[in-house]
Amino acid sequence: MFIVGELINSTRKVISQAIEQRDKVYLQELARRQAEAGANYIDVNAAQGGNEIEDMIWLVDLIQDVVDIPLCIDSPSAAALEAGLSNCRQKAMINSISGETKRWTEVLPIIKRYQPKVVALCMDESGMPETAQDRLNVADKLVAGLLDVGVPEDDIFLDPLIKPLGVNHLYGQEVFNSTKAMRNKYPQVHLISGLSNVSFGLPERRLLNRAFMVMSVALGMDAFILDPLDQTLMSLFTAAKSLAGLDEYCMEYVAGVRAGKVKA
Amino acid sequence: MFIVGELINSTRKVISQAIEQRDKVYLQELARRQAEAGANYIDVNAAQGGNEIEDMIWLVDLIQDVVDIPLCIDSPSAAALEAGLSNCRQKAMINSISGETKRWTEVLPIIKRYQPKVVALCMDESGMPETAQDRLNVADKLVAGLLDVGVPEDDIFLDPLIKPLGVNHLYGQEVFNSTKAMRNKYPQVHLISGLSNVSFGLPERRLLNRAFMVMSVALGMDAFILDPLDQTLMSLFTAAKSLAGLDEYCMEYVAGVRAGKVKA
Repeated sequence: MFIVGELINSTRKVISQAIEQRDKVYLQELARRQAEAGANYIDVNAAQGGNEIEDMIWLVDLIQDVVDIPLCIDSPSAAALEAGLSNCRQKAMINSISGETKRWTEVLPIIKRYQPKVVALCMDESGMPETAQDRLNVADKLVAGLLDVGVPEDDIFLDPLIKPLGVNHLYGQEVFNSTKAMRNKYPQVHLISGLSNVSFGLPERRLLNRAFMVMSVALGMDAFILDPLDQTLMSLFTAAKSLAGLDEYCMEYVAGVRAGKVKA
Repeated sequence: MFIVGELINSTRKVISQAIEQRDKVYLQELARRQAEAGANYIDVNAAQGGNEIEDMIWLVDLIQDVVDIPLCIDSPSAAALEAGLSNCRQKAMINSISGETKRWTEVLPIIKRYQPKVVALCMDESGMPETAQDRLNVADKLVAGLLDVGVPEDDIFLDPLIKPLGVNHLYGQEVFNSTKAMRNKYPQVHLISGLSNVSFGLPERRLLNRAFMVMSVALGMDAFILDPLDQTLMSLFTAAKSLAGLDEYCMEYVAGVRAGKVKA
């Protein structure tokens, strides 16, 4: 089970400002707090602002100076992914490749060169997937293509791409069905999801995000891009792991409660 | 999806005292509050104290005087089940029959006579089930036996019987696996669970209970015996229903938020 801490993302205004102002103290503190809260990877996105490559390298360095966990280099630009990866001090994750021809062609050589863990979005030229079957069709192509260039199953993180429930009340069900199907078909491949899209446009978003995460764990999803500083969310994550049988003697759960981190 | 409000249960000391003292006001208020919070059935258990049949009839009457929703008559005694059922003003649920010979023999005639909805516990002479397969074996016998005497699938609520995670960290997984298997095999039969056993002996029990409920919804469980006055639990239930595609246009979710009932 993996948590990617999502907070150092320049699409958040507070982060783009901190990057612009070179507020190293704030950003390092945010990395440290996410790691302490249980993140296994720190997402690094510098795509906003005019100097993505320079900003990415600066961020990658300053974060690695304060945390020991690996990074998730997150960019729509292949050049920024490469700039980030080339400065990583341990095996990183990238977010993301997809089935879109341009993206696939640009990012595959970088994957071959740096051998990172790879978030693979279940979308292609035809756009965002609608049904579970749409997602599976793209997943098959992505897994086959990545295995073909030597990426091991354990390095592949399929993202079924959740869409807003407020747009269509069956969008949750479609992603759950694809999660179940992918888990059956690819027992060794990881399944990852962000949380915030599902609740877009609806009230009490954190509640929906939390329920979506817990339901996804039950169906075999094993990685999430989320806010690890949401203590209720992380507590539910720890509880869900225990209930799924992944926490021997419930030791992590009990230790979390004793440390005051895991709370109802 | 069904919620059975569990609070009027004489195994809770506050309830056995209220029954003994004939505190009608308190008990009626508790029934009213559970219905208002979203319960679809009110559990009625009078098994503690020396006058179960008399107490059951008294409770059944006073609760029906203040709520319109049906009751779940809950007793280890067949005579008390019958006393409760015979005083119900609409189709009730009983908790429970099981695969144990004595229980089956005593309760089946009552089911034939009153045609209630039936909670059927997945246990038999061999005791509490251990594995998912144990549960399925008993479930097959229970469903076949109930269908055989004319109980429709829609009136059957299989309870896989969750055991404490603190005793064995794989007990959650066993129940999840049996939930999936029962949902596949019996798409029309309801699956029900109490929440409190899973967390017995562990700290922050409400957290585990909430996560267990949300995970179970994802796997096809559609009825719960729980405390509807736990607003966080009920909010997660409403969110889980929406995510499972059971809330058209998310209307129930949004209305719940607007009414201040559904909260993160």
